[in-house]
Amino acid sequence: MTRRLLAEFLGAGLLVAVVVGSGTAAQRLSPDDTGLQLLQNSTATVLGLAVLILLFGPVSGAHFNPVVSVADWWLGRGSGTGLSGGAAGAYVVAQCAGGIGGALLANAMFSVDGGLATTERTGTGLLLGEVVATAGLVLLIFALVRTGRAALAAPAVGAYIGAAYWFTSSTSFANPAVTVGRIFSDTFAGIAPSSAPAFVAAQLVGAAVGVVLVLALYPAPARVRL
Amino acid sequence: MTRRLLAEFLGAGLLVAVVVGSGTAAQRLSPDDTGLQLLQNSTATVLGLAVLILLFGPVSGAHFNPVVSVADWWLGRGSGTGLSGGAAGAYVVAQCAGGIGGALLANAMFSVDGGLATTERTGTGLLLGEVVATAGLVLLIFALVRTGRAALAAPAVGAYIGAAYWFTSSTSFANPAVTVGRIFSDTFAGIAPSSAPAFVAAQLVGAAVGVVLVLALYPAPARVRL
Amino acid sequence: MTRRLLAEFLGAGLLVAVVVGSGTAAQRLSPDDTGLQLLQNSTATVLGLAVLILLFGPVSGAHFNPVVSVADWWLGRGSGTGLSGGAAGAYVVAQCAGGIGGALLANAMFSVDGGLATTERTGTGLLLGEVVATAGLVLLIFALVRTGRAALAAPAVGAYIGAAYWFTSSTSFANPAVTVGRIFSDTFAGIAPSSAPAFVAAQLVGAAVGVVLVLALYPAPARVRL
Amino acid sequence: MTRRLLAEFLGAGLLVAVVVGSGTAAQRLSPDDTGLQLLQNSTATVLGLAVLILLFGPVSGAHFNPVVSVADWWLGRGSGTGLSGGAAGAYVVAQCAGGIGGALLANAMFSVDGGLATTERTGTGLLLGEVVATAGLVLLIFALVRTGRAALAAPAVGAYIGAAYWFTSSTSFANPAVTVGRIFSDTFAGIAPSSAPAFVAAQLVGAAVGVVLVLALYPAPARVRL
Repeated sequence: MTRRLLAEFLGAGLLVAVVVGSGTAAQRLSPDDTGLQLLQNSTATVLGLAVLILLFGPVSGAHFNPVVSVADWWLGRGSGTGLSGGAAGAYVVAQCAGGIGGALLANAMFSVDGGLATTERTGTGLLLGEVVATAGLVLLIFALVRTGRAALAAPAVGAYIGAAYWFTSSTSFANPAVTVGRIFSDTFAGIAPSSAPAFVAAQLVGAAVGVVLVLALYPAPARVRL
Repeated sequence: MTRRLLAEFLGAGLLVAVVVGSGTAAQRLSPDDTGLQLLQNSTATVLGLAVLILLFGPVSGAHFNPVVSVADWWLGRGSGTGLSGGAAGAYVVAQCAGGIGGALLANAMFSVDGGLATTERTGTGLLLGEVVATAGLVLLIFALVRTGRAALAAPAVGAYIGAAYWFTSSTSFANPAVTVGRIFSDTFAGIAPSSAPAFVAAQLVGAAVGVVLVLALYPAPARVRL
Repeated sequence: MTRRLLAEFLGAGLLVAVVVGSGTAAQRLSPDDTGLQLLQNSTATVLGLAVLILLFGPVSGAHFNPVVSVADWWLGRGSGTGLSGGAAGAYVVAQCAGGIGGALLANAMFSVDGGLATTERTGTGLLLGEVVATAGLVLLIFALVRTGRAALAAPAVGAYIGAAYWFTSSTSFANPAVTVGRIFSDTFAGIAPSSAPAFVAAQLVGAAVGVVLVLALYPAPARVRL
Repeated sequence: MTRRLLAEFLGAGLLVAVVVGSGTAAQRLSPDDTGLQLLQNSTATVLGLAVLILLFGPVSGAHFNPVVSVADWWLGRGSGTGLSGGAAGAYVVAQCAGGIGGALLANAMFSVDGGLATTERTGTGLLLGEVVATAGLVLLIFALVRTGRAALAAPAVGAYIGAAYWFTSSTSFANPAVTVGRIFSDTFAGIAPSSAPAFVAAQLVGAAVGVVLVLALYPAPARVRL
C-alpha cells in the first residue's frame, strides 16, 4: 500500500504541477490572448495527464482523483473488485496532499509567490460545467474498465480532459484534489478558496450522475481492476 | 435497444455540446482571431469525438450521425449485418434529439441566450465542401469496418474531422443531426435555419458518393458489425 | 491494379486537397500571423495524412508519393517484394494526376481562381531542407516495413510530416506528386512552376540518401510488403 | 556496435535539428508572440521525438540522451541487461557529436550564422525545472521498460517532453547532448555556453532522483532490454 499511496501522491502532485506550471508559463509568454493561453494549458495537460496515467497505472491504478477512488469503491463493493473503503480513504488523503505539493512545486519552479489564489470562479453556468465534466470523466473511466479496455485509459482520459477544458464553461477541474491544489496557486490556473467548496460539491454531484450512467449503459460487473 | 438509443442520444448530444461549447469558449477567449478560434474548436472536437466513439461504441456502434446509420443499413441489407431499417430510423430520431439537447446544454453551461442561429452558410463552394466532407467520412468508416479495423474508428474519425474542419470550405459539418443541433446555437458554431436544408442535402449526396467509393475500393462484404 | 491506381489517385489527390485547402483556410482566417497559419496547416496535414494512409493502405500500400514507389521497387527488386517497375510507373502517373486533381478540388471548394502558383521557393537552404525531409521520410517508411511495423505507418508518417513542416526550412514538400499539384494553387500553399524542378531534384537526392540509410541501418530484406 | 552508434548519432542529431529548426522557424514566422513560438516548437518536438524513437529504437534503443544511457547501465549492472560501461561511454560520445551536428544542420537549412548561442538561462527556478524534467523522463522510460511496455516509449516520451516544455520553467532540456548541441545555435532555442554547465549538473541530479523513484516504485528487475 505504501507504494500505491506514493504513486497517488506523485501522480496527483505532478498533475497539478502540469496544470499550474503550464498555466503560469502560458500567462507569461502570451499575455495578450487568453484563448491562446488556454490552448497552451490544455495541450500540455492532455499530454501530461496521459503520461502520468501510463506511469503510475501499474502501481496504483492512477486515479489521482478522489471521486474516481470513491466511485471505484462504490461500484466494486460486494464483488471483491475495487478499492476497500479504507484504501479509498487513504487514496483521497494522498491525492489531496499531492495536489497541494504540486502547486507548491510549480510555484517554486516559476518563482511565483506562494499566496492563495484570488481567481473567483462562480455562477450557475460554471457549476453546471463541473457537473457535466465530472459525470463524463467517471462515465468514461468505468466504461473502459467494464469493457476490458482499461489499457486505453491513458490516451482516452487525457483526450477527454483536453476536450473538457474547452466545451465546459468551467475549464473542467473535475477533481477535488486538483481543486484543493489549485487554491495554492495565485495565477491564471488558481481558484479562490471561497469558490472551491461549490466546485467540489458540483464535482460530487457530477460523479453521482456518472455512476448512474455507468450502471445504465454498462450494467455488467467490472471485469478487470482499474 | 433502449440502451443503444440512449447511447446514440447521449453521443450525438455530447458531440454537439463539444462543438458548440468549445466554439463559444473560443469566440469569447480569442475574439480577435477567427483562425485561432477554429484551431481551438477543431482541437477540442478531435479529442472529444474520439473519446465519445470509445465511450459509446460498445453499446450502439457510436454512429451519432444519420448518414452513417442509413449507410450501415444500406450496405448490410441482405447480409444480416448492419442495422435493420426500423433500427436505423430509431437511431436517426435519437441522434437528432440528442443534437438539439447538446446545443441546449452548451447554451446553459455558457449562459448563452437560446435563440436560433443567425450565421448564414451558403454558396456552391461550401456545399461542395459538405459533399466532400461527408463522402470522406462514410468512406473512412466503412473502409475500417470492411478491413476488420473498426477498433481504430475512434482516433481515425476524430482525426478525420479535425482535418476536415480545415480542408473543406464548410468546416465539415458532415452530419445531419449535428446540423440540426447547431441551428439551436446563436454563436460562432451555429447555422441559420435557412442554410440548414441545403447542408443536409449536400450531406446526403456526399454519403451516396461515399457508399459508391466503398463499393469500388472495398467490394468484400462487411466482416464485422460496426 | 485498377483499384490500386484508383486508391493512389484518390490518396494523393486528397493529400493535396488537405494541404492546399487547409492552407487556404488558414490564410483567410488568420491573415496577420504566418506562423499561426503554418500551425493550422501542419496540424490539419498531420491528421489528414494519417487518415489517408489508414484508408488506402490496404488497397495500394498508400504510397501517394513517387519517390516512395520508386524506392519500393528499388529495394524490393530481385526479392519478389516491392512493386514491379511497370507498376511503379503506373503509380507515379496516378499520383501526379491525383495531385493536380486535389489542387483543383481545393480551388473549387474555396472558390479560388485556378491560376498557377506565384510563390517563389528558392535558395540553397530550402533545397537542403527538401533533401533532409525526403531522406527522413524514406528512411522512416522502410525502417517500419523492415521491422514488421508497417501498421504504424499512418500515425508515424503523419507525425513525421508534422515535425518536418517546422524543422526543415522548406516546410517539407518531400513528394514530387504533391509538388506538381501545388503548382496549381495560387495560394499560401502553392509553388511557382519555376521553383518546382529544383524541389523535385532535391527530393530525388533525398530519396537516394534515405535508401542508403535504410541499407546501412536495416540491412535485412523486407519482411512484409508495404 | 557501429550501427548502434550511427543510430544514436543520427537520432540525437535529428532531435536537435527538430528542436532548433522548429524554434528558428517559429521565431521567424510568429515574431510577436513568444508563447505561440513555444507552442509551435513544442508541437514539432512531440511529433519529431516520437518518430525518432520509432525509427532508431530497434537499432540502438533510441536513448539519444547521456543520462538515459548511464541510467540504463546503472540499473542493469549485474543483471546482464542494460548497456555495458564501455558501450554507455560510446553512446554518450555519439550522442554529443550528434547533438552538435544537428544544430549545424539546422543552421545550414535556415541560413543561420553559426556563432555560439547568447541566450542566458540562469536562476534557481530554471535549474529546479531541469531537475524535475530529467527525473520525470528517467522515471517514465524505466517504468515502461520494467512493466514490459517499452513499445509505448515513442508516443509516451514524445508526449512527456511536450508537457515538460510547458510545465517546467526551463522548457525541459533534460538531456546533456541536446544541451551541448543547443550551444551551437544562436537562436531562440540556444543556450549560452556559460549557462550550460549548470543545466547539465541539474540534469544529472534529476537523473539520480529519477533512478531512486524507479527503484522505489518499480523494484522488480528490468524484464526487457530498452
